[in-house]
Amino acid sequence: MLQAVGIISEYNPFHNGHSYMLNQAKEVTGADVSVALMSGNWLQRGEPAAYDKWQRTKAALLGGVDLVIELPLFSAVQPSHLFAKGAVDLAAQMKCRWLAFGAEHPQMDYQQLIDHQPENPESFKKFDRPYASIFQDYLYDQTGIRLNQPNDILGFGYAKANFDAGKPLQLVPLQRVGSQHDDVQIDHQGAIASASAIRQAIHDDDSGDLERVVPESTLAMIHHDRMMTWDDFWPFLRFELVENPVEKLHQIYQMTEGIEYRLKRAAIKAESFAEFLHLVKTKRYTYTRIQRLCTYVLLHAVSNDMLQTDGYVRLLGFNSKGQHYLNQIKGDLAVPLITKVNDDVVADTIQMDFRGGMLTQMINGQSQDFYRHPIIIE
Amino acid sequence: MLQAVGIISEYNPFHNGHSYMLNQAKEVTGADVSVALMSGNWLQRGEPAAYDKWQRTKAALLGGVDLVIELPLFSAVQPSHLFAKGAVDLAAQMKCRWLAFGAEHPQMDYQQLIDHQPENPESFKKFDRPYASIFQDYLYDQTGIRLNQPNDILGFGYAKANFDAGKPLQLVPLQRVGSQHDDVQIDHQGAIASASAIRQAIHDDDSGDLERVVPESTLAMIHHDRMMTWDDFWPFLRFELVENPVEKLHQIYQMTEGIEYRLKRAAIKAESFAEFLHLVKTKRYTYTRIQRLCTYVLLHAVSNDMLQTDGYVRLLGFNSKGQHYLNQIKGDLAVPLITKVNDDVVADTIQMDFRGGMLTQMINGQSQDFYRHPIIIE
Repeated sequence: MLQAVGIISEYNPFHNGHSYMLNQAKEVTGADVSVALMSGNWLQRGEPAAYDKWQRTKAALLGGVDLVIELPLFSAVQPSHLFAKGAVDLAAQMKCRWLAFGAEHPQMDYQQLIDHQPENPESFKKFDRPYASIFQDYLYDQTGIRLNQPNDILGFGYAKANFDAGKPLQLVPLQRVGSQHDDVQIDHQGAIASASAIRQAIHDDDSGDLERVVPESTLAMIHHDRMMTWDDFWPFLRFELVENPVEKLHQIYQMTEGIEYRLKRAAIKAESFAEFLHLVKTKRYTYTRIQRLCTYVLLHAVSNDMLQTDGYVRLLGFNSKGQHYLNQIKGDLAVPLITKVNDDVVADTIQMDFRGGMLTQMINGQSQDFYRHPIIIE
Repeated sequence: MLQAVGIISEYNPFHNGHSYMLNQAKEVTGADVSVALMSGNWLQRGEPAAYDKWQRTKAALLGGVDLVIELPLFSAVQPSHLFAKGAVDLAAQMKCRWLAFGAEHPQMDYQQLIDHQPENPESFKKFDRPYASIFQDYLYDQTGIRLNQPNDILGFGYAKANFDAGKPLQLVPLQRVGSQHDDVQIDHQGAIASASAIRQAIHDDDSGDLERVVPESTLAMIHHDRMMTWDDFWPFLRFELVENPVEKLHQIYQMTEGIEYRLKRAAIKAESFAEFLHLVKTKRYTYTRIQRLCTYVLLHAVSNDMLQTDGYVRLLGFNSKGQHYLNQIKGDLAVPLITKVNDDVVADTIQMDFRGGMLTQMINGQSQDFYRHPIIIE
């Protein structure tokens, strides 16, 4: 029986830090197989993936991942607790024994945080601060633990979701190395840089630094395929915000407290996505929350779309070891295994992934679901 | 007291045929003032105006029109009977004594057609033919009059709307000259060509022929401003059809008989507007009807938006004679006169013109309502 370690990932794009973490995860756990539970074309912070899910799957497989499964969009583009729940559920469905992830403070006592959850989180709604920051202060008061780094927050989310699900997984928090998630520039030495610094270097066409921090397969992808950014989708976003009446915008998932008026006014005025974000930003709304909301607008997503519970396993790619593992578990899967897409699969199962993929297709011209088959390496 | 002749127009773009008809209308009626009731940024056949409403207003004023009023979008983008009703109502509100229009057969006995309207037009719905063609056959059977040319059909619409309103206007049908509406090429001699032949020549960058068939003011506009076509709006249309669930598309004005499924399937597949139209076309749906439907999709228009009855007079431009006339009538206007746009005017009155204008602005970068003042010539 092969034992698998699940790795929650965006691989945006796959870089040396991901490669290092993959090896760590296998080494620490002794797993036979690595399974990436990878976001598709839209990411947790409400951003389009820089490269589409197939381009990133190929890079991940060439980077040593054995099996790539798509984390459904209705989980992938969510605040950390829902993202984490979706990822943990999928890893459990894939029969992973371990779930590995990077964290700023891997020694953090998640159980203590879990034991001190607020009774009445609704009272945390304030008009001048984001919910998350009030929540973090509360936990600090209760436990003395400061939960405010992005990967720590996700790590806590995995722990909480795993706890709530009856602990199907063994969690393996790993120390993030070499760079901070928010670094905007590639360091002038060292082989590891953050994904955002790497995207900035791609934007700036800074190949010299890139060579040091990504594997060759990723470098080939960068040279071959154009990176996508919010700027590509801004015309669609502006169109939708301007043309859709506020009453209709109000129906979009997470469109609360009248922010639809603010979004519409900003869209009428702004000439670029950066200007738009600047016009919308308030103390109460983080950029991440605004961007996720904008993603929901593009997707025409309502609560029913984003609060689905019917899972499925969408296979994006594998190598021979991944295939071996897939054969081992597929008889026991409690949810559908999707390897090929037709109209029924779109309508009944992957509706949101399809909508997200069509957005990508309208920019890069590559079909994301119809006519696509899992990528096989080796 | 100045007496005005109303001219229903799209001026897409203003050409020698329009100029000729304008002079005819003034000569035949002896009117002191000409008032163009001009469609704004979206036209009756479900097409974007090739130039925006301000560019076209300027060309019309330089071409000799005294006063330009915007025909509200909720009338301008409608089948002929609703278009005609909106235009007649607006001309009556503007106290025009006459309404002049071009027709293929200006001698047509409109009253006989009015007297032989079908009792039960609902029975005309067939799955293999457009409604209009069945309606025309019925009228021919009843009256021996063949009503099948585009401007004759509109002329009949004006006559019917005028009759229904108690004949506030004297109708002045004028013989169309020099070209057919549907000519696709400018004739190699003569000073008059159809607007569609002129747009084709602009598209083909055929300045030699253009000089002969449009006045200098229009030529200047053509050289200065880029022509817009459906190709410019296709990405927005595709986005909306692909991302919006069919249940939501179904709510769009005139989205009947399940055509939303057909539109969505075609949008997912097509790479261009031409390919899309080709995929959608059936015997039952004319290109014009499909294009109007697509315009409603872009506008997110529902029945309430498009079946408004609250009129208003949106002033686009005038010369000194037009100003004189405006001063004469404005005390008696039964509807608001809009000369300047703010948030309230957008929300309460020109909502649909604004949405249509923002579409244009997203392509040509020119604000269409906010910060715009009527154009004054002389």
